[in-house]
Amino acid sequence: MRPSRRANDEMRAVSFERGVLRHAEGSCLVKFGDTHVLVAATLEERLPPWLKGQGRGWVTAEYSMLPRATLERTRREATTGKQSGRTQEIQRLIGRSLRSVTDLVGLGERQITLDCDVLQADGGTRTAAITGAWVALHDCLNWMYQRSMLKTIPLKENVAAISCGIHEGTPVLDLDYAEDSKAETDANFVMTGTGGIVEIQGTAEKTPFSQDELLSLLALARKGVGELVELQKQAIKA
Amino acid sequence: MRPSRRANDEMRAVSFERGVLRHAEGSCLVKFGDTHVLVAATLEERLPPWLKGQGRGWVTAEYSMLPRATLERTRREATTGKQSGRTQEIQRLIGRSLRSVTDLVGLGERQITLDCDVLQADGGTRTAAITGAWVALHDCLNWMYQRSMLKTIPLKENVAAISCGIHEGTPVLDLDYAEDSKAETDANFVMTGTGGIVEIQGTAEKTPFSQDELLSLLALARKGVGELVELQKQAIKA
Amino acid sequence: MRPSRRANDEMRAVSFERGVLRHAEGSCLVKFGDTHVLVAATLEERLPPWLKGQGRGWVTAEYSMLPRATLERTRREATTGKQSGRTQEIQRLIGRSLRSVTDLVGLGERQITLDCDVLQADGGTRTAAITGAWVALHDCLNWMYQRSMLKTIPLKENVAAISCGIHEGTPVLDLDYAEDSKAETDANFVMTGTGGIVEIQGTAEKTPFSQDELLSLLALARKGVGELVELQKQAIKA
Amino acid sequence: MRPSRRANDEMRAVSFERGVLRHAEGSCLVKFGDTHVLVAATLEERLPPWLKGQGRGWVTAEYSMLPRATLERTRREATTGKQSGRTQEIQRLIGRSLRSVTDLVGLGERQITLDCDVLQADGGTRTAAITGAWVALHDCLNWMYQRSMLKTIPLKENVAAISCGIHEGTPVLDLDYAEDSKAETDANFVMTGTGGIVEIQGTAEKTPFSQDELLSLLALARKGVGELVELQKQAIKA
Amino acid sequence: MRPSRRANDEMRAVSFERGVLRHAEGSCLVKFGDTHVLVAATLEERLPPWLKGQGRGWVTAEYSMLPRATLERTRREATTGKQSGRTQEIQRLIGRSLRSVTDLVGLGERQITLDCDVLQADGGTRTAAITGAWVALHDCLNWMYQRSMLKTIPLKENVAAISCGIHEGTPVLDLDYAEDSKAETDANFVMTGTGGIVEIQGTAEKTPFSQDELLSLLALARKGVGELVELQKQAIKA
Amino acid sequence: MRPSRRANDEMRAVSFERGVLRHAEGSCLVKFGDTHVLVAATLEERLPPWLKGQGRGWVTAEYSMLPRATLERTRREATTGKQSGRTQEIQRLIGRSLRSVTDLVGLGERQITLDCDVLQADGGTRTAAITGAWVALHDCLNWMYQRSMLKTIPLKENVAAISCGIHEGTPVLDLDYAEDSKAETDANFVMTGTGGIVEIQGTAEKTPFSQDELLSLLALARKGVGELVELQKQAIKA
Repeated sequence: MRPSRRANDEMRAVSFERGVLRHAEGSCLVKFGDTHVLVAATLEERLPPWLKGQGRGWVTAEYSMLPRATLERTRREATTGKQSGRTQEIQRLIGRSLRSVTDLVGLGERQITLDCDVLQADGGTRTAAITGAWVALHDCLNWMYQRSMLKTIPLKENVAAISCGIHEGTPVLDLDYAEDSKAETDANFVMTGTGGIVEIQGTAEKTPFSQDELLSLLALARKGVGELVELQKQAIKA
Repeated sequence: MRPSRRANDEMRAVSFERGVLRHAEGSCLVKFGDTHVLVAATLEERLPPWLKGQGRGWVTAEYSMLPRATLERTRREATTGKQSGRTQEIQRLIGRSLRSVTDLVGLGERQITLDCDVLQADGGTRTAAITGAWVALHDCLNWMYQRSMLKTIPLKENVAAISCGIHEGTPVLDLDYAEDSKAETDANFVMTGTGGIVEIQGTAEKTPFSQDELLSLLALARKGVGELVELQKQAIKA
Repeated sequence: MRPSRRANDEMRAVSFERGVLRHAEGSCLVKFGDTHVLVAATLEERLPPWLKGQGRGWVTAEYSMLPRATLERTRREATTGKQSGRTQEIQRLIGRSLRSVTDLVGLGERQITLDCDVLQADGGTRTAAITGAWVALHDCLNWMYQRSMLKTIPLKENVAAISCGIHEGTPVLDLDYAEDSKAETDANFVMTGTGGIVEIQGTAEKTPFSQDELLSLLALARKGVGELVELQKQAIKA
Repeated sequence: MRPSRRANDEMRAVSFERGVLRHAEGSCLVKFGDTHVLVAATLEERLPPWLKGQGRGWVTAEYSMLPRATLERTRREATTGKQSGRTQEIQRLIGRSLRSVTDLVGLGERQITLDCDVLQADGGTRTAAITGAWVALHDCLNWMYQRSMLKTIPLKENVAAISCGIHEGTPVLDLDYAEDSKAETDANFVMTGTGGIVEIQGTAEKTPFSQDELLSLLALARKGVGELVELQKQAIKA
Repeated sequence: MRPSRRANDEMRAVSFERGVLRHAEGSCLVKFGDTHVLVAATLEERLPPWLKGQGRGWVTAEYSMLPRATLERTRREATTGKQSGRTQEIQRLIGRSLRSVTDLVGLGERQITLDCDVLQADGGTRTAAITGAWVALHDCLNWMYQRSMLKTIPLKENVAAISCGIHEGTPVLDLDYAEDSKAETDANFVMTGTGGIVEIQGTAEKTPFSQDELLSLLALARKGVGELVELQKQAIKA
Repeated sequence: MRPSRRANDEMRAVSFERGVLRHAEGSCLVKFGDTHVLVAATLEERLPPWLKGQGRGWVTAEYSMLPRATLERTRREATTGKQSGRTQEIQRLIGRSLRSVTDLVGLGERQITLDCDVLQADGGTRTAAITGAWVALHDCLNWMYQRSMLKTIPLKENVAAISCGIHEGTPVLDLDYAEDSKAETDANFVMTGTGGIVEIQGTAEKTPFSQDELLSLLALARKGVGELVELQKQAIKA
């Protein structure tokens, strides 16, 4: 039995609250159980220098945790003076994931920044961030479309992410913190609405894993992402 | 007429949502209209080095704005590598204000950190932060009291803060961003539940002000703080 | 009796030595008793990016203390790698104070930087800096006027600053370090030559203060600033 | 045909030169074709603070590229003042990979740091670094064993890494820079001598990939790691 | 003819003003013509970690220029966030020079820091700093001796420094800024009261120099240091 | 007898390996005994801002030591976040030395950066770096000449560097680490192929030295540089 009493292939309750920030072109408060991430999409009519004049736009992300999102307070990165390696890894992953489903030529020479701020953490903050960022990005692009800045919404398909892991010998879906801190193997999967794999990051925390274990985690992830994509679609209809 | 159609001595709608963070010993989401600040109180059994062994505790604060709390996105301080002068001024003010009503000897050799993160900004973020931080601090101290870590709650009285300013020649209470950016004079008042002044910061943005103007701002602030303290008292009863 | 044996409304000996730096367009060594601040005014034909093309100039300030200005040596900010919150608060205050009496349109698209370096500290360094910076700014503007860069000197009036506080229950003027470190309440007042208030910063270090106490501090400050302005006027005549 | 004229499942020439640094307890210059990484293993009788007193040691890594390892000069991280996100990601990966095959209890309360400095880069620097670091770590542990600091060499098995990718529609092994910069999908595999998977990092640079493609990359990686492990074994016998 | 109309072997007017800082254990305002350096000596009962428990003390130095010490304002190192290479070179030189004449065992396990702040620069700031630092160090050691913290003053002899250079083909003593910026060769000499050489730093700015030229600069330096040592001796008698 | 059993005027075995880096326009692995420095010359068609439009080029250098170049591991400057004073001193010296023999007008408006990375250190890293950098610079200029970017190679003559010191009372040439750490006096000499002195840096680590000692060190250096220049000439012929 999992600590949360969930079935092995059962995700936590997932919700998307759209339009929570008055100033942002798109925003979403995404919850995967007790993991809460506030995503703000900002449109800017400027590009990183190395992209200028190529007829393409850019989607990038920043990630941060509030100091008391965690069980023990963590030091604020603005006071340590630099972003940790973990923060940088995660924000690079979020950016890559969202760019993989965006038509950057269709976006035009503009940049959208996805700020993912974790208000409360209980495992899976990066997967919640990616999944919620798709909603905020969609709403930002829709905001542009409503204002005739775009002819169509340049999103190729949905993208969502989920973690899986081997917990006490059993593959399980959507690890919370209690499971994550004890899992032998931990993998994050970013997949599209049509089942394509965008990113796999699998790590053996304790003992190496086998190809069969990888495949069973992938099957769980496929189920989870399918459900997340369905929830995204419902959310943007609402 | 004020842009918000409020009366000159009328505050915005103020609310306190307690216990919004699962891990923090005390927390409060405080709203002054469209200004929303999330305050987390963290108890730690450690002290800054210069305070050790004096039989007293410490209350300190950190302040930050999410990048898209503002109309235009502001750069994340974790990526610039340092806190701005404005951030440091505000977090020092919050810390001083809360210490002024805390019995530090009664707290014992422990530190409470008040993290004030602005989710959305519409003027008055520092006054909302101070006012909400009192609720989060109260709840953190009450959490300790419930666990018999304290014999009494070492809070001497309430403390709250409000801004006032001279807007188009008229003294008004609780400036929002539209007023703040055009006010001739802007003053922040931190006052206690019994009417004592803890801090005054008055600045003539455009033309110097007179003693009479100062006194009319002070009278408005006294009214506002009185209402805020009443709302704090109701909130902690709920 | 005050530790310095001064009367309650008596300032320390104040002096201004002009033209102490050969390279600066204006300079002043200001002394408030044992507090000595060297102010250099630098004219530059450039502006911060956000001010360009608006037909206005800018006056800004930087503040620093030499490591051994203080009783105990303080660490050099160039070696810690950043300016403290206190330093940033003070230099922002100095800049605001001097801008309040400068006709920025009259100055034209130029920037004047007021470097205030504390050679020796005995309380009141920020008030001495503001008061001396007015003299250095005046001399810099006069230097420009002599070279026909300006048609008139774009200074609207004098500005000066003084601290007051409640020391052992009594309101006193111009705190030195011995008083400042024990005062219950400490307030800095920036006022113009015609009595307008530019900035009030009042802080209750120990117990909140009342409106009456605020008014008695304000009355002391008014007397002190009057004397300082008189001394500034004599200094620039010399 | 691949740009390098290699067969799809053919690695570049791989070599290990041991003992290249006089001062280090273990060292190895590893070459994967034109990718050259110098690895130094340093033994220290100290631990990170959070590991003290647990009867276990630690293996960590640092990674850097010389400025002109690359086609165009890249700025030195010591002059930019911080390590890039990419650098941090890679050094965290190297550390995790080597810890996965080390018996940290057997190592005792000591730390081994693996400095991986890329002298010349032509794709695959992180996989070369991991593969060479195993040799340097082995030699460091053997150095300790020769001096009776260890009863047995606390290495559970070999670990090596290789990149695979889909290049012009075909899965290929061990991408060089020419292939890497054009690959649709790029994946790094860290595997042990007995075929366990330690880490998978697969990224769709352009279009998402399928489960079948993942499995064909994994098969290539298994072949490549098998050959690398054989070469490691020959190297430490020499 | 030199721009300053001085003879080739003639120094600028040199003066030492002792005891200029109330808080410092020793202090000296040294002037070499228009180059003015304020030196403060601070005694601390602590040592750098690597020196502890060896029965010896330490003498170190920090160097800085006020922003408007120079013809054009230079940016404050506290705002750039780091000390320049030039600053670090100079402060290391000052420290080495003063340690060369101090009996560190006689000093005991204490540290003296010599803060050299350039108020005004006209060439030769490092040589003025070293020469004035000897006076401040002497006075700090004498302060300790007066308080019976030392049995004798642990100074082995005087040390002073001077620059020489080849200006328009002619060797000259004590370059000011006008000469320094055009000199073909520039050399700084640190020498003791008995004629020993502590440090030579000679640089050919434009064309290499010969051994004969080096010897003629050394002869000038010897004359200059002799005069400086004489002035130091008179200063500490006063 | 010297620890290395070398004669007093005998250098260590010196070698130059050219063309060791595939991407660099010029490169050289220089060895002075166990001191190994990898130098890469990078040509860039850009200049520092202050040099633009003057019809001249620039030669600059950066210096770094790999963490385990030394007996004990030293912390990586990219993780400390800044270059040490020693690093900055050395790289400024290398740049000045190479500029002294380069015809910067002949180079045209381009910059050559000499990256000197110490792979292994045994004393004399800065002298080896300068001597090897001349070879890498020569090869970079020759690369340009072969491509008709230059009409002639704008090198005025050779430049090389060597350290000398007084070890147990005797002047010796080319100190290794064992000697360097015990020498009473340590001096670095940078000289040209025709015997001109470019830079002298002499430091009395323990007791001041005399003019006669300086001259005997200079004579040794002249012999050493003569041999180094001969070896450079043979190397570029090969």
